[in-house]
Amino acid sequence: MNTIFFKNKPSVIGAYSVVGPKEAEGPLKDYFDKKETDDTFGEKTFEKGEIQMLYKALRGAIKNSKKREEEIDAVICGDLLNQIIVSSFSARLLKTGFLGVYNACSTFSESLIIGSALIDGGFLNNVTCGTSSHFSTAERQYRYPLEFGSIRPPQAQWTVTGAGACVISSHKENFPYITMATIGKVVDYGVKDVYNMGACMAPAGMDTLTTFFKESNTNPSDYDLIVSGDLGAFGSRVLKDLMKEKGYDISTNHVDCGELIYAIAEDEYQGGSGAGCSSSVFCAYIYKLLKAKKLKKVILMATGALLSTLSSQQGESIPSIAHLVVLENV
Amino acid sequence: MNTIFFKNKPSVIGAYSVVGPKEAEGPLKDYFDKKETDDTFGEKTFEKGEIQMLYKALRGAIKNSKKREEEIDAVICGDLLNQIIVSSFSARLLKTGFLGVYNACSTFSESLIIGSALIDGGFLNNVTCGTSSHFSTAERQYRYPLEFGSIRPPQAQWTVTGAGACVISSHKENFPYITMATIGKVVDYGVKDVYNMGACMAPAGMDTLTTFFKESNTNPSDYDLIVSGDLGAFGSRVLKDLMKEKGYDISTNHVDCGELIYAIAEDEYQGGSGAGCSSSVFCAYIYKLLKAKKLKKVILMATGALLSTLSSQQGESIPSIAHLVVLENV
Repeated sequence: MNTIFFKNKPSVIGAYSVVGPKEAEGPLKDYFDKKETDDTFGEKTFEKGEIQMLYKALRGAIKNSKKREEEIDAVICGDLLNQIIVSSFSARLLKTGFLGVYNACSTFSESLIIGSALIDGGFLNNVTCGTSSHFSTAERQYRYPLEFGSIRPPQAQWTVTGAGACVISSHKENFPYITMATIGKVVDYGVKDVYNMGACMAPAGMDTLTTFFKESNTNPSDYDLIVSGDLGAFGSRVLKDLMKEKGYDISTNHVDCGELIYAIAEDEYQGGSGAGCSSSVFCAYIYKLLKAKKLKKVILMATGALLSTLSSQQGESIPSIAHLVVLENV
Repeated sequence: MNTIFFKNKPSVIGAYSVVGPKEAEGPLKDYFDKKETDDTFGEKTFEKGEIQMLYKALRGAIKNSKKREEEIDAVICGDLLNQIIVSSFSARLLKTGFLGVYNACSTFSESLIIGSALIDGGFLNNVTCGTSSHFSTAERQYRYPLEFGSIRPPQAQWTVTGAGACVISSHKENFPYITMATIGKVVDYGVKDVYNMGACMAPAGMDTLTTFFKESNTNPSDYDLIVSGDLGAFGSRVLKDLMKEKGYDISTNHVDCGELIYAIAEDEYQGGSGAGCSSSVFCAYIYKLLKAKKLKKVILMATGALLSTLSSQQGESIPSIAHLVVLENV
C-alpha cells in the first residue's frame, strides 16, 4: 500500500511564493507574493541569491501563518543544487529543526507528505515545507555556463526561478487540509534524452496517479483539479494519453504548473520546470484558490527526474518518480 | 520542541551491512554481513558499484527481517553523490515507494526518524531505511581524481566504503525499538577547513545532544552507549569537551562509528567518515549487540556537514547538523 490516509486534518495555515523577473511577468503575476526584479536577489552569486529566495519564502510562509519562528518545529526542504545547499544554507538562517529531502522536481510534494505525517501523527506542532529552483544556478550546474549561450532543442523546458513554502499545522478551522497522499515508486521507461523531462516523468505520474485512484477508491471526476508539477506541454499530453490507456480520463481537469507559469513563447518551449515550479505555483495560485473556496478538492502531484550529469555520462536512462497529496476544503 | 516521543514502539526487525575490502579488514570484520573483495562490486564504474552496494544492503535488510519486498511500503534513503543517484538507482531496482533524503553524513539517523514516524503514526506497515558512501566515488566528486594521489592533512578522515539498511515495522516482541528522536538544527561555528569535518560537526552534535537531554529529561548515564556517526578521533574529543562545558559527562559511554571501523593507522588519520559509516557500523555491530541484549538503551546520533564543493569555493563556512534516535530493549 502506497497511499496514506490522514485522520487529523493537517492544515495548510500559511503559504508564500517568491519568483524572479521572468516569472513575475507571466500569467500568474498577480498571484505571486514577492516578485524580484533582480535575479541575484542582491547577492554576489546566483547560488547565494537562490538561498535568499528560499529563505524569503520560508520566512514569508511562517509570517503568513501568523506563527513565530520559535513555534516552527522543523523545516523540510529540498532543491536542485548539489548537496541541496540552498536548503541547508536557508535552514542555517532559521532557528528550527531541519530535514533535508531530495526527489528532484517532486521534492515539494515529498516534503508535504513527510510534513503532514509528522503533524498528523502528533509528533510535531508546526512544520514548514519548501523548495526552490533557479534558472541560472541549474543551467550552469546541469548544462552549460550561461555565457556559452547554448541552443535548446524544442522538447526542452525552462527552469523556474522561484521558491514556495507553506506551513502545516494541526487542524485549524477554515484552512485547506491534507487528507491523503501517495508515495511514488521509481519508474523508468528507458528515456535517455536529458532535454525531454516530460517524456521521462509522465510514466511515473501515471503510475502514482493510477495507484492513488485504486487505493483511495476515487476517480478523476472527484477532483476539481489534478495539478502536476512540471511535466510541461508535451509531458502533460503524454500523461493524459497514458491515463486514458489505463481507463482514467483526466483531460478536462488536469493542469500543469509548468504550463501555467509562463505565457509559453519560443524561449520556454514546453514550459517551466524545476523543484520551485510546483511550490511557487501551488503557494501563489492553487493555495489562494483553495483558501477562497473556489476549489474544493485538489490533487497536487509533482514529478521528478532522478538523474545527475554523471549518471547520464555513464550511459544510464532517467528514472523518475511522482509523489501526490490531496488537499481539501470542507 | 525538537524531540519526538514514539508511543507504539516502532521496531527494528532486520538490518544488513555491506562493506568494501578495507573495512572488511578492520576491527569490526566479524560483524559485517557482506564483505566485498572488489570495491567496484563487479561494475564498470565506482558509482555503479556503490549502487550495487546499497541495493544489496536494502535487499539484505528486507530478507533479514523475513519480509517480502512487496510488504515494504517505502525505502527512505540517501547518499553523498550529487542528486543522491545511488539511492534513486537502488530504489529503481525495488518495487517499493521511495523517499529520498539528504543531510550529508547525518542522513542515516534522519531516515530513521522519518521512518519511525511513518510507522508509529500508523501510516505505513514496513519501511526500509538506508545510506551508503564509497571512498572512490566521494574522493573524485568532492576532492581530487584518485590518480592525482593527493596528500591529506592529519585532520582528515577516510570515507567509508559501506552501506547499511534496516527495516522498521510496527511493534514486534523481542526486537529493539525506537522510543525517541531529536531533529537537529543547523549549527555553524564558522569553520572553513573542508578537511576538518570533526571540528565542523562536533558543535551540531553538542546542540542536538543537549537539546535531547533537556527535552527528554534524561542524562548521559541513562544510556549504555552514546554512538556518534563519523566525528572521528578529533571530533569526538571536541564533542566530549563541549558536552562537559554544558554540564554533561559523556566521557565513559561515548563511542564513534568512525573510530570503531578502522584500526586507525596512518592512512585514515582521524578515522572513518561518510553517510555509510554510521549505517554500516550500526547495522553490523550496534544492532547485533542490541538484539543479543548486550545493550539495553543506546543513543545513535549521526552528524553531517552540509557543504558542497561550490559553497566552499564561494567562501562559505560549513554548516552542520546532527539527528538523534534512541533505541531500547525492554
